[in-house]
Parts: sequence; C-alpha cells; structure tokens
Amino acid sequence: MRITLATLLITSFLSIGASAMDTQNNIDTQTITKASDLPEIEGSDENFTGEVAITPLTKVTDGINATSAYVSFNASARSFWHTHPKGQYLVVTEGEGLVQEWGKAAEKIGVGDVIFCPPGIKHWHGANGKTAMTHLALTGSDEDGNNVDWLEPVSDAQYHDANH
Amino acid sequence: MRITLATLLITSFLSIGASAMDTQNNIDTQTITKASDLPEIEGSDENFTGEVAITPLTKVTDGINATSAYVSFNASARSFWHTHPKGQYLVVTEGEGLVQEWGKAAEKIGVGDVIFCPPGIKHWHGANGKTAMTHLALTGSDEDGNNVDWLEPVSDAQYHDANH
Repeated sequence: MRITLATLLITSFLSIGASAMDTQNNIDTQTITKASDLPEIEGSDENFTGEVAITPLTKVTDGINATSAYVSFNASARSFWHTHPKGQYLVVTEGEGLVQEWGKAAEKIGVGDVIFCPPGIKHWHGANGKTAMTHLALTGSDEDGNNVDWLEPVSDAQYHDANH
Repeated sequence: MRITLATLLITSFLSIGASAMDTQNNIDTQTITKASDLPEIEGSDENFTGEVAITPLTKVTDGINATSAYVSFNASARSFWHTHPKGQYLVVTEGEGLVQEWGKAAEKIGVGDVIFCPPGIKHWHGANGKTAMTHLALTGSDEDGNNVDWLEPVSDAQYHDANH
C-alpha cells in the first residue's frame, strides 16, 4: 500500500494505520500489529528529493513522547533540510548513507550507526549517490504532536559536495 | 565487548556507553556513534533465561522520555515475567519468537511485527524453542529513570506451553 500524504511527517504519523495502531492509550491489553498490516507511505516531494518510503512503527502514548518509523531512501534520495523541536535519533538498519549538520561536513553512516540530532539543529539525511539506505527514526514530539519543521531542499550542489 | 550487569535493565542503561553516548543533553551539535563502538551486554540471569545479548542504542534525552536497545535471544532464551511502568514497544528485526501477556495464550512474532505493551501489563518475550530472535525494544522511562519491574522466571512448563 502506497499513499502520498504531504502532511505525513508534520502530523507525526498520527493519522496512519489508525485501525491497527490507534489503541495505545486507555487500553489494558497487549497489542500486536503484523508487519503485513503496517502501511508504507511515499515520502512527499515537499519534504524529500527522490524516492523515499516511510513505514510508521510506533506512536506517541501516555508513557512515550516519541514516534518511530523506518525510512527507506533509494540511491540519491534524501530529506530536505529540517529541524526537530524535541530532537531525533536515527539508527541505520540497511545500506549506507549520509547525514549532515548545517555548516559542517557531511558524514558517512552505515548499518548499526546511531545518530543523535538535538532539538533545533538543522540537518538532512538520506542515501548516498550509489547506495540505498534505510534507517529507523525515533523522533520526539512536542505537546501539539509536532516533531519536525521543514526547510529548503538539499541542493544538487550541496548533495554533490556531500558525496565527495 | 560483553559485560554482565545485573542491574542493567533496572537502570535503563544509564551507565552504559557513557563515553560515546552521554552527550545527548545540553549540547548543540549532532553526534554519531559508530556501530563498532556500541556495547553488547550479556542479559543477566536474574532477568533472563538462556543466552541474551543487549545492545543499547538510544538514551533518555531532554526531548525523548524513552530508551531503545536491540535485544537478541538465542533459541529457547526469554525474559522473566515483568511489567513496564510507562509501557514498551517491541519491533522484531530478525528471526521468530514469542510474546505472552499474563493470563492469555502466547503469540508468535516475526520480522517487522510491532508489539505494544501498555503500562503495568505483565508479559514476557523471547525466542521460540527452535529459532533465535532479535527485537528492538523502545521503553518509556519514569521520572526516576526506571523502565521495568522484574518478576518471576517463565517456568519450563509455561515456556513449553507457549511453544505448542
């Protein structure tokens, strides 16, 4: 299942997979969502360059103030520049990619690497020009359910420099 | 690197990997912890039956009130019964296993399945008798940094029933 939702990341995945995953609060029983029932959402071209697939995994609950998702970038795909009001962890699960903080050199990341981006720090992440990458993203949500503020695209020149 | 720490899960991994990962708060720059620098900790026999390896990934920060870790269970290995004061998500990343809520039948889980355990619900999770399993655990922490309350072992009889 592939759905295009431009507001997806802005709304912290709150509207996705509701039938299977909207039971985290005010319940008194364990729930299992099978992998085959998880949605896969196409990353919006308002927030990503190239082909990106997002699989939301976990939602904010009464006890956990962050969401998580797998994000898969085809080769050359990457996020726009952005910040996170409550910070974000990335854990690379497949392939190789790049992450860059504004004003600093891009850095290579591979399977098992853990990246922490503090609140308000401008960054982007994605595949490199030759290899696809998937990471888990664990992103803190604020009181209004916001977890990202999107900025401008990573230009071709910026992306070229990051790859060299 | 393998370290035995009986209090590991009780202390929410706060003491592990401090040199590499103790920089999430009060910093203004992105950090990368390479996979090769992550510790792998042997699950204590006070909390687990069989061979279990834990790789802490992310810590509580100013903006994220949960920790995450990969937990790998050899075939037949499993946690003791326990509860989580703030709840827990599991995401299976390798193999096949079992999860059981107290008073209910055990359920099979496989790669990509997402389990949510609400606060205070008694459960256990682990491999089945024939196959190893790894899951990501995303566990809410309370104000004191506690994220689990350990109970009695899963008996051989209970584990046998869960496998059949």
